[in-house]
Amino acid sequence: MASQAERSHPSANHYDIVIVGAGPVGLMLSTCLARWGYKIKHIDNRPEPTATGRADGIQPRSLDLLRNMGLKSPIMAHKPARVYEVAFWDPPTGGKGIARTGTWASCPEFIDARYPFTTLLHQGLIERVFIADLEKNNTTIQRPWTITGFTSDEKADPEYPVSVELSHVDGTFKESVKAKYLFGGEGARSFIREQLKIGITHKDPIAYVWGVMDGVVKTDFPDIKMKCTIHSEHGSIMVIPRENNMVRLYIQIASSTDPDFHPRKTATVEEVQASAKRILQPYSIEWERVEWYSVYPIGQGISDKYTLDHRVFLGGDACHTHSPKAGQGMNTAFLDALNLAWKIHAVEGGLADRKILETYEPERKDVAENLLAFDNKYAKLFSQRPPSGNEVAAATAKKVAGQEAVEENEFIKTFKESCAFTSGYGVAYKPNTLNWSPEHSAQSSVIHPKTTTLVPGCLFKNADVTRVVDANVVHLEQEIPLNGAFRLFVFAGVPSVTQQALKDLADNMAKKTSFYGAFARPDADSVSHHERHNPHSRFFTVCTVFAAPRNTIEISRDLPALLARYKDNVYADDRWSRTHPDARAAAHAKMGLDEERGGVVVVRPDGYVGVVVALEEGSTTVDALNDYFGAFASKRLGDAAQEKL
Amino acid sequence: MASQAERSHPSANHYDIVIVGAGPVGLMLSTCLARWGYKIKHIDNRPEPTATGRADGIQPRSLDLLRNMGLKSPIMAHKPARVYEVAFWDPPTGGKGIARTGTWASCPEFIDARYPFTTLLHQGLIERVFIADLEKNNTTIQRPWTITGFTSDEKADPEYPVSVELSHVDGTFKESVKAKYLFGGEGARSFIREQLKIGITHKDPIAYVWGVMDGVVKTDFPDIKMKCTIHSEHGSIMVIPRENNMVRLYIQIASSTDPDFHPRKTATVEEVQASAKRILQPYSIEWERVEWYSVYPIGQGISDKYTLDHRVFLGGDACHTHSPKAGQGMNTAFLDALNLAWKIHAVEGGLADRKILETYEPERKDVAENLLAFDNKYAKLFSQRPPSGNEVAAATAKKVAGQEAVEENEFIKTFKESCAFTSGYGVAYKPNTLNWSPEHSAQSSVIHPKTTTLVPGCLFKNADVTRVVDANVVHLEQEIPLNGAFRLFVFAGVPSVTQQALKDLADNMAKKTSFYGAFARPDADSVSHHERHNPHSRFFTVCTVFAAPRNTIEISRDLPALLARYKDNVYADDRWSRTHPDARAAAHAKMGLDEERGGVVVVRPDGYVGVVVALEEGSTTVDALNDYFGAFASKRLGDAAQEKL
Repeated sequence: MASQAERSHPSANHYDIVIVGAGPVGLMLSTCLARWGYKIKHIDNRPEPTATGRADGIQPRSLDLLRNMGLKSPIMAHKPARVYEVAFWDPPTGGKGIARTGTWASCPEFIDARYPFTTLLHQGLIERVFIADLEKNNTTIQRPWTITGFTSDEKADPEYPVSVELSHVDGTFKESVKAKYLFGGEGARSFIREQLKIGITHKDPIAYVWGVMDGVVKTDFPDIKMKCTIHSEHGSIMVIPRENNMVRLYIQIASSTDPDFHPRKTATVEEVQASAKRILQPYSIEWERVEWYSVYPIGQGISDKYTLDHRVFLGGDACHTHSPKAGQGMNTAFLDALNLAWKIHAVEGGLADRKILETYEPERKDVAENLLAFDNKYAKLFSQRPPSGNEVAAATAKKVAGQEAVEENEFIKTFKESCAFTSGYGVAYKPNTLNWSPEHSAQSSVIHPKTTTLVPGCLFKNADVTRVVDANVVHLEQEIPLNGAFRLFVFAGVPSVTQQALKDLADNMAKKTSFYGAFARPDADSVSHHERHNPHSRFFTVCTVFAAPRNTIEISRDLPALLARYKDNVYADDRWSRTHPDARAAAHAKMGLDEERGGVVVVRPDGYVGVVVALEEGSTTVDALNDYFGAFASKRLGDAAQEKL
Repeated sequence: MASQAERSHPSANHYDIVIVGAGPVGLMLSTCLARWGYKIKHIDNRPEPTATGRADGIQPRSLDLLRNMGLKSPIMAHKPARVYEVAFWDPPTGGKGIARTGTWASCPEFIDARYPFTTLLHQGLIERVFIADLEKNNTTIQRPWTITGFTSDEKADPEYPVSVELSHVDGTFKESVKAKYLFGGEGARSFIREQLKIGITHKDPIAYVWGVMDGVVKTDFPDIKMKCTIHSEHGSIMVIPRENNMVRLYIQIASSTDPDFHPRKTATVEEVQASAKRILQPYSIEWERVEWYSVYPIGQGISDKYTLDHRVFLGGDACHTHSPKAGQGMNTAFLDALNLAWKIHAVEGGLADRKILETYEPERKDVAENLLAFDNKYAKLFSQRPPSGNEVAAATAKKVAGQEAVEENEFIKTFKESCAFTSGYGVAYKPNTLNWSPEHSAQSSVIHPKTTTLVPGCLFKNADVTRVVDANVVHLEQEIPLNGAFRLFVFAGVPSVTQQALKDLADNMAKKTSFYGAFARPDADSVSHHERHNPHSRFFTVCTVFAAPRNTIEISRDLPALLARYKDNVYADDRWSRTHPDARAAAHAKMGLDEERGGVVVVRPDGYVGVVVALEEGSTTVDALNDYFGAFASKRLGDAAQEKL
């Protein structure tokens, strides 16, 4: 991973950023920025990481992200539970007790996830993985410390506009620091949000009170290791398996339809266990151990703003609260932080104009609003009627060549949307300066080739390819680590066909006024030949994928020197794919790019497609890329730069 | 993993086993036995684990084994290099320098390996993974200590016949211990082997002297990250990529065809580097760092005996020395130790008669002899002529339904055998009391159904299945950890068809005279319901695989209680397989078992098939299993037991 020389600051109490809260959102932000060389003051008001309870679900897309950061292995070392299917239990027609009415994949094949399951692991263990990584980058969490006040005034101090007052929770020690940014990842009761007088819009009044209990049980209920939604005449339970033979049960304690409903209603462990026993009849359940128990009313709320001045930001539970049952809290928090992290890096590293920070709130608030809407819609989906077996089959199947298409009704459509959303793959950022839809105002014949199946604002697709230098079969989408750089995937088609186009691409990229040449590393001449991802620029990593068998590719012959420098990132698109069994180059085919002529895909540092450009001879391709990056770059690029000269 | 209560011993200086040497063979033996509850005195004469150099190649089959032990992840955490292909470089016809004449897969598709690559990692890092695991089981390596003498006399002390004298290498401390077994894993210059006056048979006189150099290089040779065999007019080199941008080069220093050949010839680092530069022309190579360098003559030798009395055993390099270039040393050592470990456990745990130990030497010596023969054959294979592209394609392709068969010539046949051998999948133990071939004297209509593709003495095949309780997609061959138990894979076909056969299987297994009932755990009534693999017996773990979709299987309905107790090991054979695309139950099909009626596969604790038995109604199936286990059990079983009563 590229790590930047530590920036100089005027004094020891000047920081790039102050991060308040070391839950998922704060830790993700801190981990990214620490890796990229920023100086961080990170505090949390708890003396230790989360000890028990709280969030525990890592969705498939988050697991991709964690792998991209090299954090998947240490998380998996804890042997988390994996949820592949969800089972539905209801009162049997004309009988007593409960019966299974259906099961379906929690991340069906059509999602095309690398890891089509939800990973369940105690939040504290996940936090510790991040904390260990932070320590490798000389960043520690200062505990138990809290924020007592702050001001932000860009006019008074354009470089370090934020002043923050910090204090040990017992008040014995205090610190005043200056920072370029302040981030509030303090959870639902955010001091920073309150100080900024940013309101919360609540969707509905609190309608349910739930108990949540983690523990080890003995039961003959057959689906205790599956995620289950159980409705009975005695109430409702949700079952979530955990690591170490544990299970989490969400048990409904009160509903607004109850005659004596009160959102502050509570219940003891014993009451909740007795309730669970009634609901699970005719099956038995006994607790060997209770690790954690809590009762909470479920309210849905969303912060009106995520920032006022683009210096003080909020993210995670400080911005959105909702039911924990869909397992979305931690995942949404991760992605809030990731979205902000790379944009701060782009600005502070010198690539982007400060206005790029204005895309954080609309991109992430839109996701939060969808999350809250989903929370309701999903519940309704199941309360209406149990779906038929055919519907489930149609909704979950991956389209395989040769199979018949099944008509999609409303149920199937809603279900598919839900799966895409809960798996994390459904996040679609709307068109903006970073995500260029086919309708983008910069009309160019090469932007967004008609055939491409990639969608700007959506994740880059996964594909298996063979790395040329060592013949390793790899996951293309994982080949560039989360290094804060934009990813240029040059799908280079057939070498003999694209030879001139590749030469022109390299020649035009090499120009000092191109997006690539304009942001060269000042130390490019002294970079080690082992540097794989950032030899020329900290802001771009290049991969080339040929539609040819590996053993026919000769990097020094088939690529111009600029692209050949990324020799560890040159691939052969020569792996068979079940979804594209007849394609000669399955990855090209999957992206909807010409198998002979290829195309260039720009992927944002967070993994979302920015723009797709045809690979053509002449300067057209780089002109289009200059247009794209020029829209938010800190310098004029391409023709615009020429004019200026 | 099941771990047994520590056995009682007469005094503190009484051990189950004394292990001398903490290289791969000693560590594997120690790790297995420590996990299974044995008391071990393990010494090594080096003050630290291997610091640099030595073995570094983990073959595909060994990686399966390490995963089965839960040690693959910590090894992979070191980011080893992975070799997928081998490249061949030779002088170009009519030109100077070297040119690539071919590449092929190091573990081609027809091998059907889970991990079709060789893993390259420094031996010291691998040793430390084992040492960390040993420490979890309260076993430490006593260093630097050495063995100074031993006697073995079963008549004088039938229980602890071995007396061993140990000493600190500086002679300041001494210890005398008693043990049931002594193991010599001390490498080629084994003190124990010498004391036993066991000779070494050398295959050929020393014919080559090689230099081996680990380091970091800067080169424009394009295949520096591949395994390469390079022949040039200036000599020969083998390239092996390593972790951390390192590369290992084997450079031929002298050959018996040289006019001045001497097996003690040596060369300096600079001389070897100069030689490498000449061989690699027209490519350049410079060393940034040399981590390790050594010169050694290659001699082939094999120990005449692996044991004299089945109390004092040898394994690893103490038994076989050969060229390191095929990367077989560590892998053969692992499998020597594994073979011995489970047999000692079977005897000392009370399952097997002591005569089972007599199978260690013939099984493992046969492998060593094949290894030495291979070492020569493999070299010849490449010196004869470069194979054609068609031949390589035919030799490496996996047979996929619908593809045409290609005629196999001698080259293709030899190459396939070589790949099977070097990957570790080619090990085939000959028929004996543990491996029942179709010709076994116990002629029974149910033993070795005609259709099965499994071969007793060969590894159980891999297959993807869905675990019923949690819908996880898993690797069936990995579902039982290396716990010292025999593995009973009950392929149960279609539930409605095999219902009676499964009931009869369970009823007959439950009998006190059956192989299963006779070796029940004395504490079976108090075993935790979380115990997954050994609820009834320490020596058997049972898996059931139905040829049915997961959501149609109801464990409590479809399985009798005895088999249902292994509820975490019940699977649905419902995953699509590319090799059996039209099978309804691909795992059944792959094993060559009837998709409706199934069959029972007994897999030895080390993963090799012992016997395959048809699944029939009545007592026939268990009768056959009683015959199999009765052949080496410590008790009479089945009818034989009845007669005795």
